[in-house]
Amino acid sequence: MAEKSSTKSLTTPEGEKNGAQADLLTLDYNNLTHGAIGDEGLTEAELNTMKKALTSAYKQFEAARTKGLLPFTELPSNTLIPKMCRKLADNYRQKIEAVVVLGIGGSALGANAVYSALRSTNHSASKADKRQWPRLLIADNIDPEGFGALLDGIDPSKTFFNVISKSGATAETMSQFMVIHDKLQRTLGRTSIKDHLLITTDPQNGVLRKIVNANDYLSMEVPPGVGGRFTVFSSVGLAPLAMVGVSVYDLLAGAKKAQEDFSKPVLANKALMFAGLNWLFTTLKNKGTLVMMPYAEALSKVADWFLQLWNESLGKALHLDGSPAGTGQTAVKAVGVTDQHSQLQMYMEGPRDKSICFLGVEKFRGEVAIPKVFKDYEELSYLGGHSLGELLNFERQGTARALAENGRPNMTLTMPKVGAGTLGYLLQTLMLATVISGTLYEVNPLDQPGVELGKKFTYGLMGRSGFSDMSERYRKGLSNKSRYIIL
Amino acid sequence: MAEKSSTKSLTTPEGEKNGAQADLLTLDYNNLTHGAIGDEGLTEAELNTMKKALTSAYKQFEAARTKGLLPFTELPSNTLIPKMCRKLADNYRQKIEAVVVLGIGGSALGANAVYSALRSTNHSASKADKRQWPRLLIADNIDPEGFGALLDGIDPSKTFFNVISKSGATAETMSQFMVIHDKLQRTLGRTSIKDHLLITTDPQNGVLRKIVNANDYLSMEVPPGVGGRFTVFSSVGLAPLAMVGVSVYDLLAGAKKAQEDFSKPVLANKALMFAGLNWLFTTLKNKGTLVMMPYAEALSKVADWFLQLWNESLGKALHLDGSPAGTGQTAVKAVGVTDQHSQLQMYMEGPRDKSICFLGVEKFRGEVAIPKVFKDYEELSYLGGHSLGELLNFERQGTARALAENGRPNMTLTMPKVGAGTLGYLLQTLMLATVISGTLYEVNPLDQPGVELGKKFTYGLMGRSGFSDMSERYRKGLSNKSRYIIL
Repeated sequence: MAEKSSTKSLTTPEGEKNGAQADLLTLDYNNLTHGAIGDEGLTEAELNTMKKALTSAYKQFEAARTKGLLPFTELPSNTLIPKMCRKLADNYRQKIEAVVVLGIGGSALGANAVYSALRSTNHSASKADKRQWPRLLIADNIDPEGFGALLDGIDPSKTFFNVISKSGATAETMSQFMVIHDKLQRTLGRTSIKDHLLITTDPQNGVLRKIVNANDYLSMEVPPGVGGRFTVFSSVGLAPLAMVGVSVYDLLAGAKKAQEDFSKPVLANKALMFAGLNWLFTTLKNKGTLVMMPYAEALSKVADWFLQLWNESLGKALHLDGSPAGTGQTAVKAVGVTDQHSQLQMYMEGPRDKSICFLGVEKFRGEVAIPKVFKDYEELSYLGGHSLGELLNFERQGTARALAENGRPNMTLTMPKVGAGTLGYLLQTLMLATVISGTLYEVNPLDQPGVELGKKFTYGLMGRSGFSDMSERYRKGLSNKSRYIIL
Repeated sequence: MAEKSSTKSLTTPEGEKNGAQADLLTLDYNNLTHGAIGDEGLTEAELNTMKKALTSAYKQFEAARTKGLLPFTELPSNTLIPKMCRKLADNYRQKIEAVVVLGIGGSALGANAVYSALRSTNHSASKADKRQWPRLLIADNIDPEGFGALLDGIDPSKTFFNVISKSGATAETMSQFMVIHDKLQRTLGRTSIKDHLLITTDPQNGVLRKIVNANDYLSMEVPPGVGGRFTVFSSVGLAPLAMVGVSVYDLLAGAKKAQEDFSKPVLANKALMFAGLNWLFTTLKNKGTLVMMPYAEALSKVADWFLQLWNESLGKALHLDGSPAGTGQTAVKAVGVTDQHSQLQMYMEGPRDKSICFLGVEKFRGEVAIPKVFKDYEELSYLGGHSLGELLNFERQGTARALAENGRPNMTLTMPKVGAGTLGYLLQTLMLATVISGTLYEVNPLDQPGVELGKKFTYGLMGRSGFSDMSERYRKGLSNKSRYIIL
């Protein structure tokens, strides 16, 4: 189990010897400095400018937080929600084989990131152990082939569905819900639906809340004022994670430590510095792209979670004062070592429009020794006696150094080991950094107005009443000259 | 099976009625034009400039091809290799449960893309059918947790390993090979290794060829002059795909059709136009990022394959004449509809540095109907009666249109259906487009010099003899001032 093997020391991370924070996350930005990468590197003057901007952003953040405007910061200290989730898990643990999350975007990415990161530990547990907890399936797309395969692969009577949508109007999630509701009703009968369903939605508003009230379905709340991409430590993330055996207490303990560390002075503050450095390289040094590159397969979905957080928060048309912005740094994902054989050439020699953030792990939860075979071949003999984890980390270090020698800025976040506590710390740190970034770019990091127009066109095309003007607008404005279509 | 259900009409695609090409791929670039996106849109004058550049690039391509310098163009017509692969598949089909590819980058991405795309069809086959063919596992990373789990999950006596490395010196693949070779020797005995191993490497050179010769191992050839990212239709891609039941003949028939269509006039030539349009938007309109965004989960790994192809080919420090370049357009991946709830905000409102290429599918291989439930709720009732596939495609169209209205350039590649033939056509078209792009950017699209430095540092750190200067250089130049490290 995740909580057993990976987070032993994290149940009370505050209590650790000689600096718990060193055990949770390290930010190394040597390869952003003038000394390492030359001309484009960070100078002392720039560092000072950044420090001032961060001090001011931090003050604004704290003022908003004190007014209760940033409730995501309070989630790590909440004790009621994890308890409820834990109880839910205990109630269902023996009855079900799978938990299926019907959700998309922020309703899916947090649980997926944490589960994927901790799953490999689950795998390495003994088979008897493994069966103690259900598996988690995240239905975050409406692809009929994929969703169809998911439906074919589950037994409804042994499956628990967690429908997650704050508004209740998310077309993708609600379509899935309609399919599942119908299927449960036909296979298990109307009254049994209740035993297989948790609806996580707004406490007051929206159609899902209406459905909960009308049918007396089990429900939890998306906390008001917390947007999807900041909900991983609310019931949105914690309920499904608890149900598949993730230690939500350890996860929150790590997040809480990150929240506490956020009060540290600027130059010792990982969240502030992550925000400040990336903002500075975007605005002063034209690094419009931030590559998030974990060197651990377990952290691949953490990068996906981060991409939504960063891109949806910072890509904004307008500044807070209403003036045109068009800001943001586009986060993209790569995975080491694999993408050294795919993306690295572009990062090394292509346009100087990128900064790389490596996400490393000091110690892996399992190792594979490279045996001392083929000793007579010089091209291979050096590998024997090392381990795959060693090779992976040497490759990360070698790549970081090669990029730096080529004047390509990069930084490294290092976790001691993947576990619930270290993940909690990492995720909360990145959420804090994202909100601070919003202040630096002078945009609202908590909204996402740009996605509405596409939704409205979809409503129009689907024939939703009240949106016929959108289908009209779609058809009238459609540029589909056949000379620009090649068959 | 893939070949049964998805490519019925493609066994002899040349023979189809009323224009086979319309059945294989459509390129719609209306949303790149001035009429659709305004100021930044393509004008007629630009289209003419591009046409001239493409005509010239095509001539250079054909000259090189006639001299035998572009052997990847000949792979679709090769009849010997698919026959050999098919025979291999027939020999092993009943004896094994899994094929494991040990390979990275171009040695893994092609087979992974095709297999992932066709796998869902395999899944939907009856269980008896499914068991006729082994499953494919791609070991394209050295993460010890991931590779360890892979090892734990297979039975060596029922597994076939295909080691793929042109040079034989790839540290990642060779480490895996050493682990596997040792494991096979210990579990099955020295003489049985031969029955579980295929080595795909250079016909003459490298340590893997030496090992093949010394041990009389089964081997195939990476064709000389074909770099990793262009090898999907060589034995590199075809052997593992054939072994898991993909119709390599259908795949090649589609690729062959794409190669034939490459002789069409510029404005009717999908490969040329894909190259020309993206080059023009990069160089004239600062779209340094190309988002490849399939609206079909089955095509997710095709996007990964494309990212390597595009980025490794075009991200170059030097022009062909040796002058500084720093060119290229960085391809990144998004998956619809999921990433509408993650990346779309950035694409709509963030910096105007992107062009989007949607990759759509007209018809899915399976559908899920949305039942007419919750009729009393206006927010949901419009969904009932549609299907998930319809919703997915409306979302793609709505998103494309919303981006266009916001002045954000996008184009759409549409496949009628995912199948071996349509995939073959798509992949060959994109490879042709990539080589043409190299000519347009005036760089060599066939090399990847930028990845060498990182490799050398790794050799140094691993203690490979002859590379102690690199470990020395690493340590001496390492910028690790503690003031730039936050614990």
